[in-house]
Amino acid sequence: MIVITSPHLSEERIREIVGHIEKQGVQAHLSRGVDRTVIGIIGKADPHLAEHLRSMQGVENVVRISKSYKLASRDFHPDDTIIDIKGVRIGGDNLVVMGGPCAVETPEQIDEIARLVKAAGGQVLRGGAFKPRTGPYSFQGIGVEGLKWMKDAGEKYGLLTITEVMTPEYVDVCAEYADILQIGTRNMQNFDLLRKLGTIRTPVLLKRGMSATYDEWLNAAEYILAGGNPNVMLCERGIRTFETYTRNTFDLAAVPAVQQLSHLPVIADPSHATGRRELVESMAKASVAAGANGLIIEMHTDPDNSATGDGVQSLFPDQFARLLKELEQLAPLCGKQFSTGKQPAEAFVTWQK
Amino acid sequence: MIVITSPHLSEERIREIVGHIEKQGVQAHLSRGVDRTVIGIIGKADPHLAEHLRSMQGVENVVRISKSYKLASRDFHPDDTIIDIKGVRIGGDNLVVMGGPCAVETPEQIDEIARLVKAAGGQVLRGGAFKPRTGPYSFQGIGVEGLKWMKDAGEKYGLLTITEVMTPEYVDVCAEYADILQIGTRNMQNFDLLRKLGTIRTPVLLKRGMSATYDEWLNAAEYILAGGNPNVMLCERGIRTFETYTRNTFDLAAVPAVQQLSHLPVIADPSHATGRRELVESMAKASVAAGANGLIIEMHTDPDNSATGDGVQSLFPDQFARLLKELEQLAPLCGKQFSTGKQPAEAFVTWQK
Amino acid sequence: MIVITSPHLSEERIREIVGHIEKQGVQAHLSRGVDRTVIGIIGKADPHLAEHLRSMQGVENVVRISKSYKLASRDFHPDDTIIDIKGVRIGGDNLVVMGGPCAVETPEQIDEIARLVKAAGGQVLRGGAFKPRTGPYSFQGIGVEGLKWMKDAGEKYGLLTITEVMTPEYVDVCAEYADILQIGTRNMQNFDLLRKLGTIRTPVLLKRGMSATYDEWLNAAEYILAGGNPNVMLCERGIRTFETYTRNTFDLAAVPAVQQLSHLPVIADPSHATGRRELVESMAKASVAAGANGLIIEMHTDPDNSATGDGVQSLFPDQFARLLKELEQLAPLCGKQFSTGKQPAEAFVTWQK
Amino acid sequence: MIVITSPHLSEERIREIVGHIEKQGVQAHLSRGVDRTVIGIIGKADPHLAEHLRSMQGVENVVRISKSYKLASRDFHPDDTIIDIKGVRIGGDNLVVMGGPCAVETPEQIDEIARLVKAAGGQVLRGGAFKPRTGPYSFQGIGVEGLKWMKDAGEKYGLLTITEVMTPEYVDVCAEYADILQIGTRNMQNFDLLRKLGTIRTPVLLKRGMSATYDEWLNAAEYILAGGNPNVMLCERGIRTFETYTRNTFDLAAVPAVQQLSHLPVIADPSHATGRRELVESMAKASVAAGANGLIIEMHTDPDNSATGDGVQSLFPDQFARLLKELEQLAPLCGKQFSTGKQPAEAFVTWQK
Repeated sequence: MIVITSPHLSEERIREIVGHIEKQGVQAHLSRGVDRTVIGIIGKADPHLAEHLRSMQGVENVVRISKSYKLASRDFHPDDTIIDIKGVRIGGDNLVVMGGPCAVETPEQIDEIARLVKAAGGQVLRGGAFKPRTGPYSFQGIGVEGLKWMKDAGEKYGLLTITEVMTPEYVDVCAEYADILQIGTRNMQNFDLLRKLGTIRTPVLLKRGMSATYDEWLNAAEYILAGGNPNVMLCERGIRTFETYTRNTFDLAAVPAVQQLSHLPVIADPSHATGRRELVESMAKASVAAGANGLIIEMHTDPDNSATGDGVQSLFPDQFARLLKELEQLAPLCGKQFSTGKQPAEAFVTWQK
Repeated sequence: MIVITSPHLSEERIREIVGHIEKQGVQAHLSRGVDRTVIGIIGKADPHLAEHLRSMQGVENVVRISKSYKLASRDFHPDDTIIDIKGVRIGGDNLVVMGGPCAVETPEQIDEIARLVKAAGGQVLRGGAFKPRTGPYSFQGIGVEGLKWMKDAGEKYGLLTITEVMTPEYVDVCAEYADILQIGTRNMQNFDLLRKLGTIRTPVLLKRGMSATYDEWLNAAEYILAGGNPNVMLCERGIRTFETYTRNTFDLAAVPAVQQLSHLPVIADPSHATGRRELVESMAKASVAAGANGLIIEMHTDPDNSATGDGVQSLFPDQFARLLKELEQLAPLCGKQFSTGKQPAEAFVTWQK
Repeated sequence: MIVITSPHLSEERIREIVGHIEKQGVQAHLSRGVDRTVIGIIGKADPHLAEHLRSMQGVENVVRISKSYKLASRDFHPDDTIIDIKGVRIGGDNLVVMGGPCAVETPEQIDEIARLVKAAGGQVLRGGAFKPRTGPYSFQGIGVEGLKWMKDAGEKYGLLTITEVMTPEYVDVCAEYADILQIGTRNMQNFDLLRKLGTIRTPVLLKRGMSATYDEWLNAAEYILAGGNPNVMLCERGIRTFETYTRNTFDLAAVPAVQQLSHLPVIADPSHATGRRELVESMAKASVAAGANGLIIEMHTDPDNSATGDGVQSLFPDQFARLLKELEQLAPLCGKQFSTGKQPAEAFVTWQK
Repeated sequence: MIVITSPHLSEERIREIVGHIEKQGVQAHLSRGVDRTVIGIIGKADPHLAEHLRSMQGVENVVRISKSYKLASRDFHPDDTIIDIKGVRIGGDNLVVMGGPCAVETPEQIDEIARLVKAAGGQVLRGGAFKPRTGPYSFQGIGVEGLKWMKDAGEKYGLLTITEVMTPEYVDVCAEYADILQIGTRNMQNFDLLRKLGTIRTPVLLKRGMSATYDEWLNAAEYILAGGNPNVMLCERGIRTFETYTRNTFDLAAVPAVQQLSHLPVIADPSHATGRRELVESMAKASVAAGANGLIIEMHTDPDNSATGDGVQSLFPDQFARLLKELEQLAPLCGKQFSTGKQPAEAFVTWQK
């Protein structure tokens, strides 16, 4: 940590600041410039120290040198984290594809989509039973009943399941029915929720807040890791910018950047990042080329009648299947393994009828 | 609502879309342009309809004409909402000033600051007992004990109190000790928290999410109002942009804009919006000139030793008192009433010793 | 300047970096931390040095301590710059109001508006003869003829004039007809234009780029100052963010912030910043309360027939006159002087007929 | 175009607005809703009309239905534009790679880098002779002399050349020496420069403004096309957001989005978009997977001694060569053709010595 003083600060005040630092059991090392003095702090400082120093009069700036998070950092854990869920490995050189509807709507809907996700070669079924919605009058999700339908569909077709949890009190019931818990963009800094997730061992997919920096995102992961749950994967789903043609701006460079900063797997969500069906396939391929450890993609059999407005960003089943075939070829060139398994042709013929 | 079709859409598909609309019990009115057909929807549509239509193939765009929120809208409630809390009126032509530290630290600290807020002419004591913090290793607040200290200080000096609540399960205990509950920027779309706040009658100060549009902010208020709690005030506290010199970018035009869209009082927070002590006084005055119904300002007696890093944005007590004297003169020119009451001079003499 | 090395960098590479620094005739001062070495640079470094160092392998970060601009900085020139144009003082404790249409349209239009600006107490007539327009098919301005009409109107009513110049080759002709040259947001980093403006002495109003930081904005001013023209004023006109309800986001904290960083006058433009007539009055008052040295406001007698779409943000003449009356009262409470002069009542009666 | 009136607007005012519309020779079609009237405009309206209407009192909103640009639109020109420059085809299914230093520094430097670009399989040599720099004291480029050195190097190794032009008066000399003219992000809306480029036939690479929407970017291209120069390619180089870890935020979804909106080739610039060497390779591959028609990449043999700070984002020659080998494999899976030609191994052995 480096402390930069205000210009022409009195010797007395510099000594007070140094005294403040040394009380913390670390060393202060002074460089006197023409106008300002720079104080280097050597040793392991209490995490509160930077905040305290920034508040002191006579301090112009405090520059962190080491990262503000620890367990999430690649410095701390140089090897890739690989999360093994019932034999599906997430992280490292494996590519995982999660697909399904925005919201679970009926048992038949989720069963049919699960069948199609599996047939196309996906490994995880996504679907929301609790939906975060901007306005109170929008469809808010089916609730626990929807979790059961999804669990049944996942088991029937041999898929893992992922669903969003929005509040600490629902963590346990969601963890009972789903294999992975998704934290949505609006809850990335819902700290009580993060703390609760630290107390369980169910894997968590932590979406980036729509205006969160990489540093804040990794600090949010740190809450879960520090609580004792090492099974965290990150998800880039677009950030909010001035561009409104796409629903969000897909910050795809976050994938390699965060993989360099952290050992946690990074999943890309081209559906929410773009909000437009006609961009999802290109950006899914780009995500794999950028090095993503997986994709989470919306797919729907009947977007005309989807319960939420997200039908507009959902692939049709045949697009989803074609995309996965392309990813199968692309993955090895990007250092990843991915197989769609057996021939899904008939499955989609059935759907197209 | 207006639906714009894709160019050169088939008659058959247009009829399907119209059929979909008319099933909702509203009328569809077609304008055929050169390339596209525009479908006007007349009558009171179900709030889900826009979402459904946006998902349909052949729909290029859906433009809302009426607002997506109702109870929060000035169309619905043309007069200003005035919230009366123990005789302090918030809203309309009254100016309210809330002051205090970022965090409650000790009983002595909050008592001393309460005395200074009162002496300067403030009406509400602010202070956090539960702190939302980016990283898990930062100071997280004193907890319920802090609420008690603040309540005692408020009662002793005749101040209302406001404190942040971060999770539904703490709403009741916070409402027991504080007069106003603050919802922080990270929780503006914590929908379970909003729903819980709708079930009580304690006034709520709803801070704008750091990347929330006015529309999303008013929809968040709508959750509370729709639950049955009419006592909502809004707080502009800066948004996140590319400019990093200030902690946030103070979108002060939000004050008159949201007052035109809504009847709810709008409070300005120049401390968090700028994050720099030396900008707070100017921007507090600007907030009043822009028409704010109140201010929430950080003030600390000893920022060198504040528990959080927010000391850097806290006014000193003498700055706070001087500012309130200036606001007393400014308010009447801006259509607002504000009085600092009796002479606070001695109070600050005491502090300065 | 401080250089932070990559973690665990070899001694040899650290020596190479230090050698690179010392070749520039400045001193390098090393602090060795646990993982990284921090190199403080003492003395007056060549401005290129930071860039060079940032490019070197083994350098993780370079932190500037002194500012990247000099002549624009308050450190260099502690007193406010006051620009005196034919007796109108811009800067310091004087408040200047510039008003007029987006575009000069006809001699009659600009004459009538000039009369109304003067009657209301404004000191400067604004109007564009060359218009920067997003699309090539929009109205691009009247050209040099419009400059002449505006000059005539300014002289007739005793107003200074300001107009936008978009390209180096038009600087001389614009300076011949107008008292102040305005540089628009899209040209803030048109460096050839800035250099050309450095060669003349006509005062320049430099609008902030719509995504420019304070630092970039002051560096743009530095181009003009370094060329030899000391008569630069800055103009905050809103930045681009995710919020679309207002045309731009008015970063009003830029006014006091930049006044602290620089000695140059800062003018606020609430018309472009909000893009909505119904917000201009509030934000004009807020600008004065924030400490602005002046305002530039669009006013039009017939927005139904304005040549550009900016009618929507233009005040009507009676609103403009009422606003200036309010500013006359507000200014002294904000440390500024402003007088609307004689009774403008009849003037506006005339217009209203 | 659709005009939405203010709520409860008088019949008289609606008639005036309709009269205004019909005077333009187009038809107005009214839909009367509960509160507002919607006026559909049918026929080919003058481009000024939307602006006029937006300024009229009683108009709440104007929604464009057709695009604001024409020649740049895929509706107007359904087939991909392919620009053939001395046999190198840019656009369609061909992938083009442009490489070279940020700035031309010496004849030897540009000769050596040209040799390495060619050896790796690149087709175009990039290099700046005129540099747009934030501050006036930074290195501003070599000038015309640099253009000559680059032309010589390009001819010697059989590479096309591309260089940035910053001002209309330099367009002719740059076009004399370079095959493609680059317009930088700060000049995307330098309309005089765009108009000048419309008068020549030299191909132009138009970089996206750092806060430009797709619509503004395509309107900037429209200026050049409308002037008569059909040889325009677009370049996504990152936009400005709140994230500062990367130099800009690479909006890679702009590639397929703009390709759907327009027929012009889209080139991606992962160097400026990320500003970090360690992210360039991943994002170059992602760009090809997203469907980019080409890449422009910074490469330098000696970043320690680069003239600008952009060394930090320059690949080393061996990284550049390895990347192009990978792209050769990736391109066919993404519908593109790209060949690195003969074995470049010895070339890079030479450099590594």
